[in-house]
Amino acid sequence: MANDTRPIGVFDSGIGGLTGFQKLRALLPEEDLIYFGDTGRVPYGTRGRDIITKYARQDANFLMHFGIKLLFIACNTACYAALDTLQNELPIPVCGVIEDASLRACKQTKNGRIAILATAATVSGHVYSDFLKSLRPDLQVLEQPCRLFVPVVEAGRFDKTDPIVQILTQEYLAPVRAFGADTIILGCTHYPLLAPAIAQAAPEAVLIDSGAEAAIHVASILAEKGLCNFSGHKGHVRYYVSDSIENFADSASIFLRRPLEGPVERIDIEKF
Amino acid sequence: MANDTRPIGVFDSGIGGLTGFQKLRALLPEEDLIYFGDTGRVPYGTRGRDIITKYARQDANFLMHFGIKLLFIACNTACYAALDTLQNELPIPVCGVIEDASLRACKQTKNGRIAILATAATVSGHVYSDFLKSLRPDLQVLEQPCRLFVPVVEAGRFDKTDPIVQILTQEYLAPVRAFGADTIILGCTHYPLLAPAIAQAAPEAVLIDSGAEAAIHVASILAEKGLCNFSGHKGHVRYYVSDSIENFADSASIFLRRPLEGPVERIDIEKF
Repeated sequence: MANDTRPIGVFDSGIGGLTGFQKLRALLPEEDLIYFGDTGRVPYGTRGRDIITKYARQDANFLMHFGIKLLFIACNTACYAALDTLQNELPIPVCGVIEDASLRACKQTKNGRIAILATAATVSGHVYSDFLKSLRPDLQVLEQPCRLFVPVVEAGRFDKTDPIVQILTQEYLAPVRAFGADTIILGCTHYPLLAPAIAQAAPEAVLIDSGAEAAIHVASILAEKGLCNFSGHKGHVRYYVSDSIENFADSASIFLRRPLEGPVERIDIEKF
Repeated sequence: MANDTRPIGVFDSGIGGLTGFQKLRALLPEEDLIYFGDTGRVPYGTRGRDIITKYARQDANFLMHFGIKLLFIACNTACYAALDTLQNELPIPVCGVIEDASLRACKQTKNGRIAILATAATVSGHVYSDFLKSLRPDLQVLEQPCRLFVPVVEAGRFDKTDPIVQILTQEYLAPVRAFGADTIILGCTHYPLLAPAIAQAAPEAVLIDSGAEAAIHVASILAEKGLCNFSGHKGHVRYYVSDSIENFADSASIFLRRPLEGPVERIDIEKF
Protein backbone atom coordinates (compact mmCIF):
# COMPACT_ATOMS: atom_id res chain seq x y z
CA MET A 1 0.00 0.00 0.00
CA ALA A 2 1.38 3.42 -0.96
CA ASN A 3 2.46 5.77 1.81
CA ASP A 4 1.49 9.30 0.89
CA THR A 5 3.23 11.78 3.17
CA ARG A 6 1.91 14.93 1.48
CA PRO A 7 -0.04 17.22 3.81
CA ILE A 8 -3.78 17.91 3.82
CA GLY A 9 -4.80 21.55 3.35
CA VAL A 10 -7.72 23.08 5.23
CA PHE A 11 -9.02 26.60 4.95
CA ASP A 12 -11.70 28.70 6.53
CA SER A 13 -12.65 32.37 6.56
CA GLY A 14 -11.21 32.65 10.08
CA ILE A 15 -11.18 30.53 13.21
CA GLY A 16 -14.49 28.67 12.80
CA GLY A 17 -12.96 25.96 10.61
CA LEU A 18 -10.81 24.90 13.55
CA THR A 19 -13.77 22.84 14.78
CA GLY A 20 -13.67 20.69 11.61
CA PHE A 21 -9.87 20.77 11.65
CA GLN A 22 -9.78 19.35 15.18
CA LYS A 23 -12.13 16.54 14.14
CA LEU A 24 -9.80 15.74 11.24
CA ARG A 25 -6.81 15.79 13.56
CA ALA A 26 -8.53 13.37 15.93
CA LEU A 27 -9.53 11.01 13.10
CA LEU A 28 -6.20 11.12 11.24
CA PRO A 29 -3.46 11.73 13.80
CA GLU A 30 -0.65 10.63 11.46
CA GLU A 31 -1.46 13.15 8.74
CA ASP A 32 0.39 16.44 8.37
CA LEU A 33 -2.18 19.23 8.38
CA ILE A 34 -1.94 22.82 7.22
CA TYR A 35 -4.66 25.26 8.27
CA PHE A 36 -5.20 28.62 6.66
CA GLY A 37 -7.57 31.03 8.42
CA ASP A 38 -8.34 34.13 6.36
CA THR A 39 -8.54 36.29 9.47
CA GLY A 40 -7.64 39.42 7.51
CA ARG A 41 -10.83 39.13 5.44
CA VAL A 42 -13.25 37.40 7.83
CA PRO A 43 -16.27 37.22 7.82
CA TYR A 44 -17.21 35.73 4.44
CA GLY A 45 -20.85 35.19 5.48
CA THR A 46 -22.00 38.75 4.85
CA ARG A 47 -20.26 39.24 1.48
CA GLY A 48 -21.40 38.81 -2.11
CA ARG A 49 -20.85 35.48 -3.88
CA ASP A 50 -18.25 36.70 -6.38
CA ILE A 51 -16.08 38.19 -3.63
CA ILE A 52 -16.30 34.93 -1.67
CA THR A 53 -15.33 32.92 -4.76
CA LYS A 54 -12.31 35.14 -5.38
CA TYR A 55 -11.19 34.78 -1.78
CA ALA A 56 -11.69 31.00 -1.77
CA ARG A 57 -9.61 30.65 -4.94
CA GLN A 58 -6.78 32.63 -3.35
CA ASP A 59 -6.99 30.52 -0.18
CA ALA A 60 -6.77 27.33 -2.26
CA ASN A 61 -3.87 28.68 -4.35
CA PHE A 62 -1.91 29.43 -1.20
CA LEU A 63 -2.38 25.88 0.13
CA MET A 64 -1.54 24.29 -3.25
CA HIS A 65 2.00 25.67 -2.84
CA PHE A 66 2.58 23.08 -0.10
CA GLY A 67 1.91 20.18 -2.46
CA ILE A 68 -1.24 19.13 -0.58
CA LYS A 69 -2.94 15.85 -1.50
CA LEU A 70 -6.46 16.93 -0.56
CA LEU A 71 -8.20 20.24 0.09
CA PHE A 72 -10.81 20.45 2.84
CA ILE A 73 -12.91 23.62 2.72
CA ALA A 74 -13.99 23.90 6.36
CA CYS A 75 -16.26 26.89 5.77
CA ASN A 76 -19.91 26.58 4.76
CA THR A 77 -19.97 29.99 3.12
CA ALA A 78 -16.92 29.25 0.95
CA CYS A 79 -18.46 25.87 0.00
CA TYR A 80 -21.70 27.53 -1.00
CA ALA A 81 -19.87 30.01 -3.23
CA ALA A 82 -16.87 28.09 -4.56
CA LEU A 83 -16.88 24.32 -3.98
CA ASP A 84 -17.88 23.46 -7.57
CA THR A 85 -15.39 25.96 -8.99
CA LEU A 86 -12.49 24.57 -6.97
CA GLN A 87 -13.45 20.96 -7.67
CA ASN A 88 -13.30 21.79 -11.39
CA GLU A 89 -10.09 23.79 -11.23
CA LEU A 90 -7.89 21.74 -8.90
CA PRO A 91 -6.13 18.44 -9.72
CA ILE A 92 -6.70 16.98 -6.21
CA PRO A 93 -9.82 15.91 -4.29
CA VAL A 94 -11.69 18.87 -2.80
CA CYS A 95 -14.10 18.21 0.09
CA GLY A 96 -16.69 20.60 1.45
CA VAL A 97 -18.93 20.61 4.49
CA ILE A 98 -22.39 20.61 2.90
CA GLU A 99 -22.94 17.22 1.25
CA ASP A 100 -22.00 14.91 4.12
CA ALA A 101 -24.09 16.76 6.67
CA SER A 102 -27.01 16.59 4.24
CA LEU A 103 -26.59 12.84 3.71
CA ARG A 104 -26.47 12.29 7.46
CA ALA A 105 -29.57 14.45 7.97
CA CYS A 106 -31.49 12.42 5.36
CA LYS A 107 -30.68 9.21 7.22
CA GLN A 108 -31.43 10.76 10.59
CA THR A 109 -34.80 12.38 10.08
CA LYS A 110 -37.95 10.45 10.99
CA ASN A 111 -40.57 13.07 10.13
CA GLY A 112 -38.86 14.42 6.99
CA ARG A 113 -38.46 17.91 8.47
CA ILE A 114 -34.89 19.25 8.49
CA ALA A 115 -33.73 22.70 9.58
CA ILE A 116 -30.43 24.32 8.66
CA LEU A 117 -28.88 27.02 10.83
CA ALA A 118 -26.41 29.10 8.80
CA THR A 119 -25.04 32.53 7.91
CA ALA A 120 -27.05 34.91 5.74
CA ALA A 121 -24.87 34.14 2.70
CA THR A 122 -25.24 30.36 3.01
CA VAL A 123 -29.00 30.68 3.47
CA SER A 124 -29.35 33.00 0.47
CA GLY A 125 -27.61 30.40 -1.73
CA HIS A 126 -30.06 27.61 -0.71
CA VAL A 127 -27.28 25.03 -1.15
CA TYR A 128 -28.42 22.82 1.71
CA SER A 129 -32.03 22.99 0.65
CA ASP A 130 -31.20 22.24 -3.01
CA PHE A 131 -28.92 19.34 -2.14
CA LEU A 132 -31.34 17.83 0.38
CA LYS A 133 -34.22 17.98 -2.09
CA SER A 134 -32.08 16.37 -4.79
CA LEU A 135 -31.56 13.48 -2.37
CA ARG A 136 -35.17 13.26 -1.25
CA PRO A 137 -37.74 15.47 -2.97
CA ASP A 138 -40.31 14.74 -0.24
CA LEU A 139 -38.30 16.52 2.49
CA GLN A 140 -39.52 19.69 4.17
CA VAL A 141 -36.57 22.03 4.67
CA LEU A 142 -36.30 25.27 6.68
CA GLU A 143 -33.22 27.48 6.30
CA GLN A 144 -32.77 29.76 9.29
CA PRO A 145 -30.21 32.61 9.12
CA CYS A 146 -28.48 33.24 12.46
CA ARG A 147 -26.77 36.53 11.81
CA LEU A 148 -25.27 37.18 15.24
CA PHE A 149 -24.01 33.68 16.08
CA VAL A 150 -20.57 34.18 14.46
CA PRO A 151 -19.70 37.51 16.12
CA VAL A 152 -21.00 36.24 19.46
CA VAL A 153 -18.88 33.07 19.32
CA GLU A 154 -15.85 35.07 18.16
CA ALA A 155 -16.32 37.32 21.19
CA GLY A 156 -15.87 34.14 23.27
CA ARG A 157 -19.54 33.92 24.21
CA PHE A 158 -21.07 30.49 23.69
CA ASP A 159 -21.83 29.26 27.19
CA LYS A 160 -25.48 28.25 27.41
CA THR A 161 -25.90 30.28 30.61
CA ASP A 162 -24.83 33.56 28.91
CA PRO A 163 -28.02 35.67 28.57
CA ILE A 164 -26.99 36.91 25.11
CA VAL A 165 -26.58 33.30 23.96
CA GLN A 166 -29.91 32.33 25.49
CA ILE A 167 -31.84 35.15 23.84
CA LEU A 168 -30.31 34.55 20.43
CA THR A 169 -30.78 30.77 20.50
CA GLN A 170 -34.41 31.16 21.62
CA GLU A 171 -35.02 33.72 18.88
CA TYR A 172 -33.37 31.80 16.03
CA LEU A 173 -34.75 28.42 17.12
CA ALA A 174 -38.36 29.59 17.58
CA PRO A 175 -39.18 29.20 13.83
CA VAL A 176 -37.38 25.83 13.83
CA ARG A 177 -39.54 24.54 16.68
CA ALA A 178 -42.69 25.90 15.06
CA PHE A 179 -41.68 24.14 11.84
CA GLY A 180 -41.32 20.87 13.77
CA ALA A 181 -37.83 19.86 12.59
CA ASP A 182 -36.54 16.66 14.20
CA THR A 183 -33.08 17.17 12.67
CA ILE A 184 -30.98 20.35 12.66
CA ILE A 185 -27.84 20.84 10.58
CA LEU A 186 -25.30 23.22 12.15
CA GLY A 187 -24.45 24.79 8.80
CA CYS A 188 -21.56 26.96 9.99
CA THR A 189 -18.35 25.72 11.59
CA HIS A 190 -18.72 28.19 14.47
CA TYR A 191 -21.98 26.69 15.60
CA PRO A 192 -20.75 23.46 17.25
CA LEU A 193 -19.56 25.66 20.13
CA LEU A 194 -23.16 26.73 20.58
CA ALA A 195 -24.47 23.14 20.44
CA PRO A 196 -25.34 22.92 24.17
CA ALA A 197 -27.30 26.18 23.93
CA ILE A 198 -28.99 25.14 20.69
CA ALA A 199 -29.88 21.73 22.16
CA GLN A 200 -31.43 23.53 25.13
CA ALA A 201 -33.55 25.70 22.82
CA ALA A 202 -34.63 22.73 20.62
CA PRO A 203 -34.41 19.67 22.89
CA GLU A 204 -36.51 17.49 20.59
CA ALA A 205 -34.11 17.67 17.62
CA VAL A 206 -30.88 15.86 16.72
CA LEU A 207 -27.98 18.20 15.88
CA ILE A 208 -25.65 17.43 12.98
CA ASP A 209 -22.19 19.06 12.91
CA SER A 210 -21.27 19.79 9.28
CA GLY A 211 -17.52 19.98 9.98
CA ALA A 212 -17.45 16.68 11.84
CA GLU A 213 -19.38 14.86 9.09
CA ALA A 214 -17.01 16.25 6.48
CA ALA A 215 -13.95 15.15 8.46
CA ILE A 216 -15.26 11.56 8.39
CA HIS A 217 -15.72 11.89 4.63
CA VAL A 218 -12.16 13.16 4.18
CA ALA A 219 -10.85 10.11 6.05
CA SER A 220 -12.85 7.77 3.80
CA ILE A 221 -11.63 9.49 0.60
CA LEU A 222 -8.01 9.12 1.66
CA ALA A 223 -8.56 5.42 2.31
CA GLU A 224 -10.45 4.86 -0.98
CA LYS A 225 -7.89 6.64 -3.10
CA GLY A 226 -4.81 5.18 -1.38
CA LEU A 227 -3.66 8.60 -0.14
CA CYS A 228 -3.09 7.74 3.55
CA ASN A 229 0.06 8.50 5.50
CA PHE A 230 1.39 5.35 7.22
CA SER A 231 4.60 6.86 8.64
CA GLY A 232 3.66 5.72 12.12
CA HIS A 233 4.50 9.01 13.82
CA LYS A 234 2.29 11.87 14.84
CA GLY A 235 1.66 14.32 12.01
CA HIS A 236 2.78 17.94 12.11
CA VAL A 237 0.34 20.80 12.28
CA ARG A 238 0.95 24.31 10.96
CA TYR A 239 -1.35 27.33 10.93
CA TYR A 240 -1.30 30.34 8.63
CA VAL A 241 -3.37 33.49 8.96
CA SER A 242 -3.81 36.77 7.08
CA ASP A 243 -4.01 39.05 10.14
CA SER A 244 -2.36 39.27 13.56
CA ILE A 245 -0.83 36.01 14.86
CA GLU A 246 -1.47 37.04 18.46
CA ASN A 247 -5.18 37.66 17.85
CA PHE A 248 -5.47 34.24 16.18
CA ALA A 249 -3.63 32.37 18.92
CA ASP A 250 -5.71 34.07 21.62
CA SER A 251 -9.06 33.57 19.87
CA ALA A 252 -8.25 30.00 18.83
CA SER A 253 -7.40 28.93 22.35
CA ILE A 254 -10.62 30.46 23.76
CA PHE A 255 -12.49 28.89 20.89
CA LEU A 256 -10.98 25.40 21.19
CA ARG A 257 -10.41 25.52 24.96
CA ARG A 258 -6.87 24.24 24.35
CA PRO A 259 -3.65 25.72 22.94
CA LEU A 260 -2.69 25.42 19.26
CA GLU A 261 -0.57 22.38 18.37
CA GLY A 262 1.94 23.98 16.01
CA PRO A 263 3.47 27.23 14.79
CA VAL A 264 1.40 30.11 13.38
CA GLU A 265 2.68 32.27 10.55
CA ARG A 266 1.19 35.29 8.86
CA ILE A 267 0.98 35.64 5.07
CA ASP A 268 -0.26 38.20 2.55
CA ILE A 269 -3.15 36.29 0.96
CA GLU A 270 -3.75 38.95 -1.68
CA LYS A 271 -0.54 37.84 -3.43
CA PHE A 272 -2.08 34.44 -4.24
CA MET B 1 -14.10 84.86 -2.23
CA ALA B 2 -13.05 81.76 -4.16
CA ASN B 3 -15.66 79.21 -5.10
CA ASP B 4 -14.20 75.72 -4.73
CA THR B 5 -16.46 73.18 -6.41
CA ARG B 6 -14.24 70.15 -5.83
CA PRO B 7 -15.93 67.36 -3.85
CA ILE B 8 -15.22 66.25 -0.28
CA GLY B 9 -14.18 62.60 0.15
CA VAL B 10 -15.35 60.51 3.09
CA PHE B 11 -14.47 56.92 3.85
CA ASP B 12 -15.31 54.35 6.44
CA SER B 13 -14.77 50.63 6.89
CA GLY B 14 -18.43 50.05 5.99
CA ILE B 15 -21.73 51.72 6.74
CA GLY B 16 -20.95 53.24 10.18
CA GLY B 17 -19.38 56.37 8.70
CA LEU B 18 -22.74 57.25 7.20
CA THR B 19 -23.67 58.80 10.56
CA GLY B 20 -20.81 61.34 10.26
CA PHE B 21 -21.50 61.69 6.53
CA GLN B 22 -25.13 62.65 7.19
CA LYS B 23 -24.02 65.29 9.70
CA LEU B 24 -21.68 66.72 7.08
CA ARG B 25 -24.46 66.71 4.51
CA ALA B 26 -26.75 68.61 6.90
CA LEU B 27 -24.06 71.17 7.75
CA LEU B 28 -22.80 71.68 4.18
CA PRO B 29 -25.74 71.07 1.81
CA GLU B 30 -24.04 72.79 -1.14
CA GLU B 31 -20.95 70.57 -1.12
CA ASP B 32 -20.56 67.58 -3.44
CA LEU B 33 -19.83 64.53 -1.29
CA ILE B 34 -18.34 61.17 -2.21
CA TYR B 35 -18.62 58.33 0.29
CA PHE B 36 -16.57 55.15 0.10
CA GLY B 37 -17.62 52.26 2.38
CA ASP B 38 -15.13 49.40 2.40
CA THR B 39 -17.90 46.83 2.79
CA GLY B 40 -15.79 44.13 1.16
CA ARG B 41 -13.24 44.30 4.01
CA VAL B 42 -15.35 45.41 6.98
CA PRO B 43 -14.83 45.26 9.98
CA TYR B 44 -11.53 47.07 10.56
CA GLY B 45 -11.95 47.07 14.35
CA THR B 46 -10.75 43.51 14.91
CA ARG B 47 -7.71 43.67 12.59
CA GLY B 48 -4.04 44.46 13.22
CA ARG B 49 -2.78 48.02 12.84
CA ASP B 50 -0.63 47.46 9.74
CA ILE B 51 -3.54 45.86 7.84
CA ILE B 52 -5.79 48.78 8.80
CA THR B 53 -3.16 51.29 7.62
CA LYS B 54 -2.83 49.51 4.30
CA TYR B 55 -6.60 49.51 3.80
CA ALA B 56 -6.93 53.19 4.79
CA ARG B 57 -4.23 54.16 2.31
CA GLN B 58 -6.07 52.34 -0.48
CA ASP B 59 -9.37 53.98 0.52
CA ALA B 60 -7.72 57.42 0.41
CA ASN B 61 -6.03 56.70 -2.94
CA PHE B 62 -9.36 55.78 -4.46
CA LEU B 63 -10.98 59.04 -3.31
CA MET B 64 -7.98 61.14 -4.44
CA HIS B 65 -8.83 60.14 -8.04
CA PHE B 66 -11.90 62.40 -7.82
CA GLY B 67 -9.79 65.50 -7.15
CA ILE B 68 -11.21 65.91 -3.64
CA LYS B 69 -10.39 69.07 -1.68
CA LEU B 70 -10.58 67.48 1.78
CA LEU B 71 -10.55 63.93 3.13
CA PHE B 72 -12.77 63.07 6.10
CA ILE B 73 -11.94 59.72 7.71
CA ALA B 74 -15.29 58.84 9.29
CA CYS B 75 -13.98 55.72 11.02
CA ASN B 76 -12.39 55.75 14.47
CA THR B 77 -10.40 52.59 13.82
CA ALA B 78 -8.90 53.96 10.59
CA CYS B 79 -8.06 57.23 12.39
CA TYR B 80 -6.33 55.36 15.18
CA ALA B 81 -4.20 53.41 12.70
CA ALA B 82 -3.63 55.81 9.82
CA LEU B 83 -4.61 59.46 10.43
CA ASP B 84 -1.02 60.65 10.96
CA THR B 85 0.21 58.66 7.96
CA LEU B 86 -2.42 60.10 5.62
CA GLN B 87 -1.97 63.65 6.95
CA ASN B 88 1.74 63.33 6.11
CA GLU B 89 1.25 61.71 2.71
CA LEU B 90 -1.63 63.67 1.18
CA PRO B 91 -1.50 67.24 -0.22
CA ILE B 92 -4.99 68.13 1.10
CA PRO B 93 -6.45 68.58 4.61
CA VAL B 94 -7.27 65.25 6.28
CA CYS B 95 -9.75 65.26 9.18
CA GLY B 96 -10.36 62.43 11.60
CA VAL B 97 -12.94 61.76 14.28
CA ILE B 98 -10.79 61.60 17.42
CA GLU B 99 -9.46 65.08 18.14
CA ASP B 100 -12.68 67.09 18.00
CA ALA B 101 -14.62 64.69 20.19
CA SER B 102 -11.75 64.85 22.69
CA LEU B 103 -11.73 68.66 22.69
CA ARG B 104 -15.48 68.72 23.24
CA ALA B 105 -15.22 66.18 26.08
CA CYS B 106 -12.55 68.30 27.82
CA LYS B 107 -14.85 71.30 27.74
CA GLN B 108 -17.86 69.26 28.79
CA THR B 109 -16.59 67.33 31.81
CA LYS B 110 -17.17 68.76 35.28
CA ASN B 111 -15.57 66.01 37.36
CA GLY B 112 -12.63 65.27 35.02
CA ARG B 113 -13.76 61.68 34.39
CA ILE B 114 -14.26 60.77 30.73
CA ALA B 115 -15.13 57.37 29.30
CA ILE B 116 -14.62 56.26 25.70
CA LEU B 117 -16.70 53.48 24.16
CA ALA B 118 -14.91 51.99 21.15
CA THR B 119 -13.91 48.87 19.22
CA ALA B 120 -11.16 46.59 20.52
CA ALA B 121 -8.64 48.01 18.01
CA THR B 122 -9.31 51.64 18.92
CA VAL B 123 -9.08 50.84 22.63
CA SER B 124 -5.83 48.92 22.19
CA GLY B 125 -4.27 51.96 20.49
CA HIS B 126 -5.14 54.31 23.42
CA VAL B 127 -5.48 57.21 20.98
CA TYR B 128 -8.32 58.89 22.83
CA SER B 129 -6.64 58.45 26.18
CA ASP B 130 -3.29 59.77 24.91
CA PHE B 131 -4.85 62.77 23.20
CA LEU B 132 -7.10 63.66 26.15
CA LYS B 133 -4.16 63.52 28.56
CA SER B 134 -2.05 65.70 26.26
CA LEU B 135 -4.84 68.29 26.52
CA ARG B 136 -5.36 67.95 30.26
CA PRO B 137 -2.97 65.71 32.22
CA ASP B 138 -5.28 65.76 35.26
CA LEU B 139 -8.09 63.88 33.48
CA GLN B 140 -9.16 60.39 34.53
CA VAL B 141 -9.91 58.34 31.39
CA LEU B 142 -11.57 54.93 31.01
CA GLU B 143 -11.47 53.15 27.64
CA GLN B 144 -14.23 50.55 27.34
CA PRO B 145 -14.19 48.07 24.45
CA CYS B 146 -17.69 47.19 23.19
CA ARG B 147 -16.98 44.23 20.98
CA LEU B 148 -20.52 43.31 19.97
CA PHE B 149 -21.95 46.78 19.33
CA VAL B 150 -20.91 46.89 15.66
CA PRO B 151 -22.31 43.48 14.62
CA VAL B 152 -25.50 44.14 16.60
CA VAL B 153 -26.07 47.53 14.92
CA GLU B 154 -25.24 46.05 11.50
CA ALA B 155 -27.87 43.38 12.16
CA GLY B 156 -30.33 46.30 12.47
CA ARG B 157 -30.65 45.96 16.24
CA PHE B 158 -30.26 49.22 18.10
CA ASP B 159 -33.69 49.91 19.57
CA LYS B 160 -33.39 50.46 23.30
CA THR B 161 -36.20 47.98 23.95
CA ASP B 162 -34.36 45.10 22.21
CA PRO B 163 -33.26 42.71 24.99
CA ILE B 164 -29.90 42.06 23.26
CA VAL B 165 -29.25 45.81 23.15
CA GLN B 166 -30.28 46.19 26.79
CA ILE B 167 -28.02 43.41 28.05
CA LEU B 168 -25.01 44.63 26.08
CA THR B 169 -25.40 48.29 27.06
CA GLN B 170 -25.85 47.36 30.73
CA GLU B 171 -22.78 45.14 30.55
CA TYR B 172 -20.48 47.58 28.74
CA LEU B 173 -21.70 50.61 30.72
CA ALA B 174 -21.38 49.00 34.16
CA PRO B 175 -17.62 49.79 34.44
CA VAL B 176 -18.29 53.30 33.12
CA ARG B 177 -20.86 53.96 35.85
CA ALA B 178 -18.58 52.48 38.52
CA PHE B 179 -15.81 54.75 37.25
CA GLY B 180 -18.12 57.75 37.64
CA ALA B 181 -17.69 59.28 34.17
CA ASP B 182 -19.84 62.38 33.58
CA THR B 183 -18.89 62.47 29.87
CA ILE B 184 -18.88 59.57 27.40
CA ILE B 185 -17.34 59.72 23.94
CA LEU B 186 -19.05 57.47 21.37
CA GLY B 187 -15.75 56.45 19.80
CA CYS B 188 -17.17 54.48 16.87
CA THR B 189 -19.43 55.85 14.15
CA HIS B 190 -21.91 53.00 14.64
CA TYR B 191 -22.61 53.96 18.22
CA PRO B 192 -24.80 57.06 17.69
CA LEU B 193 -27.58 54.64 16.70
CA LEU B 194 -27.28 53.12 20.16
CA ALA B 195 -27.30 56.54 21.89
CA PRO B 196 -30.83 56.15 23.36
CA ALA B 197 -29.89 52.74 24.80
CA ILE B 198 -26.55 54.02 26.10
CA ALA B 199 -28.20 57.07 27.65
CA GLN B 200 -30.66 54.73 29.39
CA ALA B 201 -27.78 52.67 30.82
CA ALA B 202 -25.79 55.76 31.93
CA PRO B 203 -28.38 58.50 32.47
CA GLU B 204 -26.01 60.72 34.45
CA ALA B 205 -23.50 61.19 31.61
CA VAL B 206 -23.38 63.47 28.54
CA LEU B 207 -22.79 61.60 25.26
CA ILE B 208 -20.44 63.00 22.62
CA ASP B 209 -20.78 61.80 19.01
CA SER B 210 -17.31 61.68 17.45
CA GLY B 211 -18.61 61.83 13.87
CA ALA B 212 -20.83 64.85 14.53
CA GLU B 213 -18.01 66.78 16.22
CA ALA B 214 -15.71 66.02 13.31
CA ALA B 215 -18.30 67.18 10.77
CA ILE B 216 -18.40 70.57 12.53
CA HIS B 217 -14.60 70.71 12.35
CA VAL B 218 -14.65 69.91 8.62
CA ALA B 219 -17.03 72.83 8.05
CA SER B 220 -14.74 75.19 9.96
CA ILE B 221 -11.63 74.07 8.03
CA LEU B 222 -13.34 74.70 4.70
CA ALA B 223 -14.28 78.21 5.84
CA GLU B 224 -10.81 78.98 7.24
CA LYS B 225 -8.96 77.78 4.16
CA GLY B 226 -11.33 79.35 1.64
CA LEU B 227 -12.40 75.95 0.25
CA CYS B 228 -16.18 76.38 0.37
CA ASN B 229 -18.56 75.75 -2.50
CA PHE B 230 -20.81 78.76 -3.10
CA SER B 231 -22.58 77.48 -6.21
CA GLY B 232 -25.94 78.04 -4.58
CA HIS B 233 -27.40 74.67 -5.60
CA LYS B 234 -27.72 71.46 -3.65
CA GLY B 235 -24.57 69.34 -3.81
CA HIS B 236 -24.47 65.88 -5.42
CA VAL B 237 -23.90 62.75 -3.37
CA ARG B 238 -22.31 59.56 -4.65
CA TYR B 239 -21.56 56.31 -2.83
CA TYR B 240 -18.98 53.64 -3.63
CA VAL B 241 -18.61 50.26 -1.96
CA SER B 242 -16.32 47.24 -2.27
CA ASP B 243 -19.03 44.56 -1.89
CA SER B 244 -22.63 44.09 -3.02
CA ILE B 245 -24.52 47.29 -3.86
CA GLU B 246 -27.82 45.74 -2.80
CA ASN B 247 -26.52 44.79 0.64
CA PHE B 248 -25.21 48.32 1.13
CA ALA B 249 -28.41 50.02 0.02
CA ASP B 250 -30.51 47.76 2.26
CA SER B 251 -28.28 48.10 5.32
CA ALA B 252 -27.79 51.82 4.85
CA SER B 253 -31.50 52.52 4.72
CA ILE B 254 -32.15 50.45 7.88
CA PHE B 255 -29.18 52.16 9.48
CA LEU B 256 -30.14 55.73 8.54
CA ARG B 257 -33.92 55.18 8.53
CA ARG B 258 -34.07 56.94 5.15
CA PRO B 259 -33.08 56.05 1.59
CA LEU B 260 -29.69 56.93 0.09
CA GLU B 261 -29.52 60.27 -1.71
CA GLY B 262 -27.48 59.30 -4.76
CA PRO B 263 -26.19 56.44 -6.90
CA VAL B 264 -24.14 53.55 -5.49
CA GLU B 265 -21.34 51.94 -7.48
CA ARG B 266 -19.10 49.02 -6.70
CA ILE B 267 -15.31 49.17 -7.14
CA ASP B 268 -12.35 46.82 -6.66
CA ILE B 269 -10.50 48.58 -3.83
CA GLU B 270 -7.53 46.23 -4.03
CA LYS B 271 -6.50 47.91 -7.29
CA PHE B 272 -5.80 51.20 -5.47
